[in-house]
Amino acid sequence: MGITIGVDVGGTKIAAGAVDEDGNVLASTRMMTPAGFTDDITDAIAEVVAELRAHKNVAAVDAVGLGAAGFIDRTRSRVLVSPNLNKAWRNEPLRDRVSAKVNLPVVVENDANAAAWGEFKFGAGRGLEDAIVLTVGTGIGGGLILDRRLIRGHWGVAAEVGHITAVVGGRRCGCGNRGCWEQYVSGRALIREAREIASVEPGRARRLLDLGGGVPEGILGPHVTLAAREGDGAAREVFDVMGRWLGFGMAILAAVLDPGLFIISGGVSEAGDLLIAPTRAAFRELLTGHDARPEAGVVLAELGNGAGVVGAADLARYLD
Amino acid sequence: MGITIGVDVGGTKIAAGAVDEDGNVLASTRMMTPAGFTDDITDAIAEVVAELRAHKNVAAVDAVGLGAAGFIDRTRSRVLVSPNLNKAWRNEPLRDRVSAKVNLPVVVENDANAAAWGEFKFGAGRGLEDAIVLTVGTGIGGGLILDRRLIRGHWGVAAEVGHITAVVGGRRCGCGNRGCWEQYVSGRALIREAREIASVEPGRARRLLDLGGGVPEGILGPHVTLAAREGDGAAREVFDVMGRWLGFGMAILAAVLDPGLFIISGGVSEAGDLLIAPTRAAFRELLTGHDARPEAGVVLAELGNGAGVVGAADLARYLD
Amino acid sequence: MGITIGVDVGGTKIAAGAVDEDGNVLASTRMMTPAGFTDDITDAIAEVVAELRAHKNVAAVDAVGLGAAGFIDRTRSRVLVSPNLNKAWRNEPLRDRVSAKVNLPVVVENDANAAAWGEFKFGAGRGLEDAIVLTVGTGIGGGLILDRRLIRGHWGVAAEVGHITAVVGGRRCGCGNRGCWEQYVSGRALIREAREIASVEPGRARRLLDLGGGVPEGILGPHVTLAAREGDGAAREVFDVMGRWLGFGMAILAAVLDPGLFIISGGVSEAGDLLIAPTRAAFRELLTGHDARPEAGVVLAELGNGAGVVGAADLARYLD
Amino acid sequence: MGITIGVDVGGTKIAAGAVDEDGNVLASTRMMTPAGFTDDITDAIAEVVAELRAHKNVAAVDAVGLGAAGFIDRTRSRVLVSPNLNKAWRNEPLRDRVSAKVNLPVVVENDANAAAWGEFKFGAGRGLEDAIVLTVGTGIGGGLILDRRLIRGHWGVAAEVGHITAVVGGRRCGCGNRGCWEQYVSGRALIREAREIASVEPGRARRLLDLGGGVPEGILGPHVTLAAREGDGAAREVFDVMGRWLGFGMAILAAVLDPGLFIISGGVSEAGDLLIAPTRAAFRELLTGHDARPEAGVVLAELGNGAGVVGAADLARYLD
Repeated sequence: MGITIGVDVGGTKIAAGAVDEDGNVLASTRMMTPAGFTDDITDAIAEVVAELRAHKNVAAVDAVGLGAAGFIDRTRSRVLVSPNLNKAWRNEPLRDRVSAKVNLPVVVENDANAAAWGEFKFGAGRGLEDAIVLTVGTGIGGGLILDRRLIRGHWGVAAEVGHITAVVGGRRCGCGNRGCWEQYVSGRALIREAREIASVEPGRARRLLDLGGGVPEGILGPHVTLAAREGDGAAREVFDVMGRWLGFGMAILAAVLDPGLFIISGGVSEAGDLLIAPTRAAFRELLTGHDARPEAGVVLAELGNGAGVVGAADLARYLD
Repeated sequence: MGITIGVDVGGTKIAAGAVDEDGNVLASTRMMTPAGFTDDITDAIAEVVAELRAHKNVAAVDAVGLGAAGFIDRTRSRVLVSPNLNKAWRNEPLRDRVSAKVNLPVVVENDANAAAWGEFKFGAGRGLEDAIVLTVGTGIGGGLILDRRLIRGHWGVAAEVGHITAVVGGRRCGCGNRGCWEQYVSGRALIREAREIASVEPGRARRLLDLGGGVPEGILGPHVTLAAREGDGAAREVFDVMGRWLGFGMAILAAVLDPGLFIISGGVSEAGDLLIAPTRAAFRELLTGHDARPEAGVVLAELGNGAGVVGAADLARYLD
Repeated sequence: MGITIGVDVGGTKIAAGAVDEDGNVLASTRMMTPAGFTDDITDAIAEVVAELRAHKNVAAVDAVGLGAAGFIDRTRSRVLVSPNLNKAWRNEPLRDRVSAKVNLPVVVENDANAAAWGEFKFGAGRGLEDAIVLTVGTGIGGGLILDRRLIRGHWGVAAEVGHITAVVGGRRCGCGNRGCWEQYVSGRALIREAREIASVEPGRARRLLDLGGGVPEGILGPHVTLAAREGDGAAREVFDVMGRWLGFGMAILAAVLDPGLFIISGGVSEAGDLLIAPTRAAFRELLTGHDARPEAGVVLAELGNGAGVVGAADLARYLD
Repeated sequence: MGITIGVDVGGTKIAAGAVDEDGNVLASTRMMTPAGFTDDITDAIAEVVAELRAHKNVAAVDAVGLGAAGFIDRTRSRVLVSPNLNKAWRNEPLRDRVSAKVNLPVVVENDANAAAWGEFKFGAGRGLEDAIVLTVGTGIGGGLILDRRLIRGHWGVAAEVGHITAVVGGRRCGCGNRGCWEQYVSGRALIREAREIASVEPGRARRLLDLGGGVPEGILGPHVTLAAREGDGAAREVFDVMGRWLGFGMAILAAVLDPGLFIISGGVSEAGDLLIAPTRAAFRELLTGHDARPEAGVVLAELGNGAGVVGAADLARYLD
């Protein structure tokens, strides 16, 4: 199979690219996600596909891979629910609708899975047998690749790793439970931790407060990263706390899946070693049997936001 | 492939059987595990294999599968460490040693994996695509089968599910961590919980104390099961606590792997519905997104202790 | 002793009143707290005292009682530290400075103690032997009265009840510890809980979000009280959580001190029974030995903000 | 008042002494506690009183103080309940029954209060204004002395300090709650911790196992103390854990009561500095406002088991 098109269908924008077998992006485009109705979104997808097929760098296209936010069924054809794309969707036959419009084979994947696959195949995981990709953004998304296969689960909803219970009876989570892992490490958790330090120890958090315009509520993620890079103690403590929790959950995943590598992506990972160093330390300490087994690597992702498009494009090559 | 032999090599006994493609055991035998030296164990394995090959029900044998307690490498040939079989083993080439003695192809698997595979292929999981088998005995062992494949991990040590952290800073675990899941649900946890009730509320735990000979230290697992079956409130509470924790950890596993079925085996599961009912209730409540997704089944294992032999025999059919 | 003057010296305002032996306020006044230097504050106190002495309702004044935010020494004469009144104070002889200016005997008390005493002597605790007063405002302040005596502690800093550890390793507190009780029940905790529900379950918290102008950050304490009064489920849950934690800490205090009555005051208590009902339920459940002992009452305070002036005035009658 | 008699009425023995105003024991005696009926116990008390009055060292006796295990009412005359002395007692008029038999004024106190008072008045607390006495034995008992007065509570049941909740949802307690402080530091907690280490880390706990006869269940408190004194790492860790929890609860008590001194007595305290050093460290770290306030002392009790008799005798001097 030659060129395929990957489309990353998110709640705010649709990004797409024509990609060759080696993961090279030959052409790319993007548009705002239309609000509201199914047809709008399928029309928009058809539009970006047509635009890419018309591009001078792009020869014949063989298939289209869609990475869509939401629960996708295991046949990779229907969207079970997707609060971010269309609240009305229930078992929406997205694959067939798009396929009818673009006249090409289509597969639908969960967007986090697609991005994980892109990062595994062409980014920090290329050439390997297995990896767990953790995207630490607003929450924690992820993808599991074992024996070079993406783990989708019985109903297609595996890898909801952000909802591992980290603390019994802990912080509320939007999923209805308490204590979910992403309540302790994520962009939101980082801001929360920083604001909490600023509220209760304003003296020590002076730099953070300055950056936030004088009030805890003004402190944002990039402020914490900036201050931590400058060496600010309070900001570094925030990343230490984040890394501790990240390593904690990774130790749970390693007990279950024994991966060879963790790849960390997402906004919070932009802090690089400020996050990765305490993460590695906690993972090492908390991994069961850590004295008697090899230890998985922990690296930063390489592809950034583009992983979703490349991954979706590549997954379209496996049409089974 | 016709008949294969499965050998379950545990710390106290070696059980073996000749098994056909449909999981029927044509002949079986067992002996005590010799203590001490490698050769003893390989000799013992060779002995049971020879005995079975000589049995009148057994025609030509094609391969041997060993299920061994310990960390097994991913090539299914070497025992990394095995505190229960031979403390001196480090990277022991068990496959080749046994193969040289029995003149047959051999594969080595972790014993919990072998038992899980047996239960999946021929027991409560037969005909399915995926299942998580949880053996709640002294600790919690388990095996993960996804897309009809056993998940072994990058270094062969996946499915150490008993060491998922359930409680941050919780009870000590022999693995060196604190708060491991098997400290909250297992045969040991059950006894501990029962003795704790008996210590602090002797009035309410009168029946348990009677069965235990009058002192908390005398209460054993079967006493709790017996009293619970009689309807004793304190004993039922013990199973409610066990079930709650079992369902709690299953919700973590389901968030990660989205299996279609959980199969519960091991000594604690002999209590049947006394354990399964509270387990299901907790799992239902704690599963992330439980309102918007199908729910995995929870059933008892069907094969009992024999699953290890049958599973090891069957895994010998996949020699890759 | 006839008429005494009570002065409540807070971080933002100074309130004062001339009070008779029965707790009747004959005249009252208030002014803004001057920022900065000691003399300003003693001048301001002298000014309100002079103003009251000149009032037509006020005959001869016998003594002055000051309730001051901060750590007060056990001789009731010096302010050890007071971050809210004057950061420079260390062992400040406030009693003698004021006494020199007003030519009257003076005593200094911690302001929470003074308010607790006022409420005990003339409010919800009048005629009783003992009571614990808990002021649930920004944090939790309190006063302990046993055998009709105010408990001050060896160094004068007893009744810092807001800093009982409720949760090991829990939420950060401005005092430098983690998990302090006032991080779980207080005006701040109430707002935090409400915003957290609104962040993770916006659908259920629609009414709270409306009141807060559409964003979680806009939700304030009175919004929660208002919505709870209307019967809103999310707001009621916030008060249920507050009440649960309030009762939890009261059970600790009752295990230690066995009071006959808890009097609840402060901004959060304005919700009345919305708070008190779940508080009583939790207290009842969590009180050690609750089946074998009488149970302390839980009532709302009666005097409101005026308790501090009345209490300080009355404490000036005990000059030892 | 000259000589008084103190009687410590425990579940297994009755100890008594004739004591002068300075706490000197002029004569003493003891007998086994009769099982079963009220009269037996009052007869036994009358008997030891008579025996002491007949002793050559003892001149006229002015009053009798009884320290009795159980809930004692605040008038110091009735036993509300006493599971250890007589399960049938409900509101038993012990003071009047004994007084009628011995023809002397009698007061009844809770035995922990009596011992705390003895230690305060004549032991480690002599000459001071206030102290909290903590008896770390099977559980944690205690007595609170503020301004040289014993705190009894509204219904006489104050100072049940062992039932402060240390861990929300923690270990079961005989009082019906979970997470009570005495489940984390006490003789029982010490044994439990030691056995737990021995179960999960037998290699590191070799010395403890040796002392316990080879099995965790054999390890007793004195074994842990002995091994810790020898410098054994596992045993020292047990005391570090105990000290950490002891200091933790003391920080709660200090936040509420601000005592000048903690006096530690009971079996666990026989380990001396092995316990006290980590206790002090934890207390220092966890005391709210620890940078801005004086810190209470932490010392060992001086009187040992005799404190109960001396304390009860002295409390008989206050007959109000």
